[in-house]
Amino acid sequence: MIDEFALIERIRRRIARRDAALEVGPGDDAAAVRLGGGRRLLLTTDALVAGVHFDPARESARDVGWRAVAANVSDVAAMGGRPRWLLLSLSLPEDTAAEWVEELADGFAAAADAAGAVVAGGNLTRARDLALHVTLVGETESAPLRRCGARPGDRLFLSGPVGAAAAGRRGAAAGVRGAHELDRLRLRYLHPPFRLDAAAVLARVASAAIDVSDGLLQDLGHLADASGVGVRLRLAAVPLAFGHPRGDPALALELALGGGEDYELLAAVPVAGVALADRLCAEAGVGLYEIGEAAGDLPPGTLVGIEADGAARPLERRGFRHFDGRER
Amino acid sequence: MIDEFALIERIRRRIARRDAALEVGPGDDAAAVRLGGGRRLLLTTDALVAGVHFDPARESARDVGWRAVAANVSDVAAMGGRPRWLLLSLSLPEDTAAEWVEELADGFAAAADAAGAVVAGGNLTRARDLALHVTLVGETESAPLRRCGARPGDRLFLSGPVGAAAAGRRGAAAGVRGAHELDRLRLRYLHPPFRLDAAAVLARVASAAIDVSDGLLQDLGHLADASGVGVRLRLAAVPLAFGHPRGDPALALELALGGGEDYELLAAVPVAGVALADRLCAEAGVGLYEIGEAAGDLPPGTLVGIEADGAARPLERRGFRHFDGRER
Repeated sequence: MIDEFALIERIRRRIARRDAALEVGPGDDAAAVRLGGGRRLLLTTDALVAGVHFDPARESARDVGWRAVAANVSDVAAMGGRPRWLLLSLSLPEDTAAEWVEELADGFAAAADAAGAVVAGGNLTRARDLALHVTLVGETESAPLRRCGARPGDRLFLSGPVGAAAAGRRGAAAGVRGAHELDRLRLRYLHPPFRLDAAAVLARVASAAIDVSDGLLQDLGHLADASGVGVRLRLAAVPLAFGHPRGDPALALELALGGGEDYELLAAVPVAGVALADRLCAEAGVGLYEIGEAAGDLPPGTLVGIEADGAARPLERRGFRHFDGRER
Repeated sequence: MIDEFALIERIRRRIARRDAALEVGPGDDAAAVRLGGGRRLLLTTDALVAGVHFDPARESARDVGWRAVAANVSDVAAMGGRPRWLLLSLSLPEDTAAEWVEELADGFAAAADAAGAVVAGGNLTRARDLALHVTLVGETESAPLRRCGARPGDRLFLSGPVGAAAAGRRGAAAGVRGAHELDRLRLRYLHPPFRLDAAAVLARVASAAIDVSDGLLQDLGHLADASGVGVRLRLAAVPLAFGHPRGDPALALELALGGGEDYELLAAVPVAGVALADRLCAEAGVGLYEIGEAAGDLPPGTLVGIEADGAARPLERRGFRHFDGRER
């Protein structure tokens, strides 16, 4: 099986043509298109396929609909934008019950509503796979937050705790105890947050951003690669969504670093902007967690973890690869 | 199996929320969104699934990529707009060759280029189905051409001959003789026209439009339903893409009326606008074929065929239903 990222790169070389309005093309969380007067459209598409990204036997149609919206909202938020219009291209096996599709539409519409977007259109086709291919058109009046803008010295921030989705999926195997705690983690997985308030703050102060969908280390690696910087990650500062006292602390960190599907925002903020970021966060009631910094003295793309005692250790990128559906 | 159009209607009821900017929501060829200053975005999504809409053993990856763009371009043209930005959400079985995907990207990029659009982004996922889910964002400065605007007395026009795709698919069974003629028809199927010049004319004069993708009678029926008018179709005036002298003339008309995948535009033009339409067509080198008229003295949605001798006969809607992949 060919590597997902290599194949994407091969495709990208074939579709290299740009136009003057296309400010950000393929390769970031969303494309950005200039409309004039500082206004930009943000365009992104993402898919949920049964058997790869969800299990219809374990997730309600409503939750699947919600999560399909959330994954796209997260991409627009990572560019510093607001969701506006959604399109849903749905492929259904012949034996799909109409009621299942209606529940899906309910979840999709509820999530659209919560994100401040409306469903503008869609398409329906027969197929073997039950799949949702979603397109979200967003908007921003600021320069889009790209992955490539981080500079040495910039501070790195997370919009919220990570690892809940991974812990929720693993349940007892991850040391999760108690039905209530498991419900909380599963809910966090099924209904990921919309970090639109954090996006509005970051649009004013950040030099770069990406959404944490593949796993913190993998997405940190994408940001480091694109920006040509290394990263020092203060491991004890990473906010853990799952840190059950009877759980395994090493495993909790593992899930936080590699788990995926957190849909938090990861952003770089220049040191000169940190005070403004703090003030804006306080005004908007937004939490941002400082987890490390972009480093010019490390080879570009290198991730180094700093332990509580100051010891440094290299970090391997791990995370979810959409193409083979395996975690690595 | 639930009916495609009934299921779409059930979904639509669940996603009914609009916003002030959404001028045309689900149910037309594309959604339309007001940007201010008369400017509108057009949003549409369409899918090609292997085994339903194409056969990878008989169509090259390049042709599939081209046709996926063409289907979306046709939707934007039918609203009177110009294609601008494309997104491709691709699902691939594990054994897909990277070279096949590259050829697909080549065809997709070439068609985008020919339509004046650029590929802004995409997504890649593993799945059982080889499928392309395409979103096209278009633009227009005119009021979008909806399906619902035709009024009694309006003349009906087609942007080009119909039936080639259906004849090309059937080959000898449709009476097609000779490899050259078959090639011509197959090419017309694999590379449908972009009717963007016709769209620019229609944007200035038409009261309603739809693209002919499901088959002329079915799409004529959609336009008649949405507009609340009947239709008189002059059968001898329907331009036939396939009228081989040794072929069966009744079959040629049959393919033209019910064949599908023509991607021509069907539009209604008020009588007062027909002279202007003629002049604009002459200036732009655009051909429009007058095929009938919207009728207020027939029950809404009724289609009546007028034979060359003036005799009237009711026409049954036939065409391609995407959901079950059968012609009916």
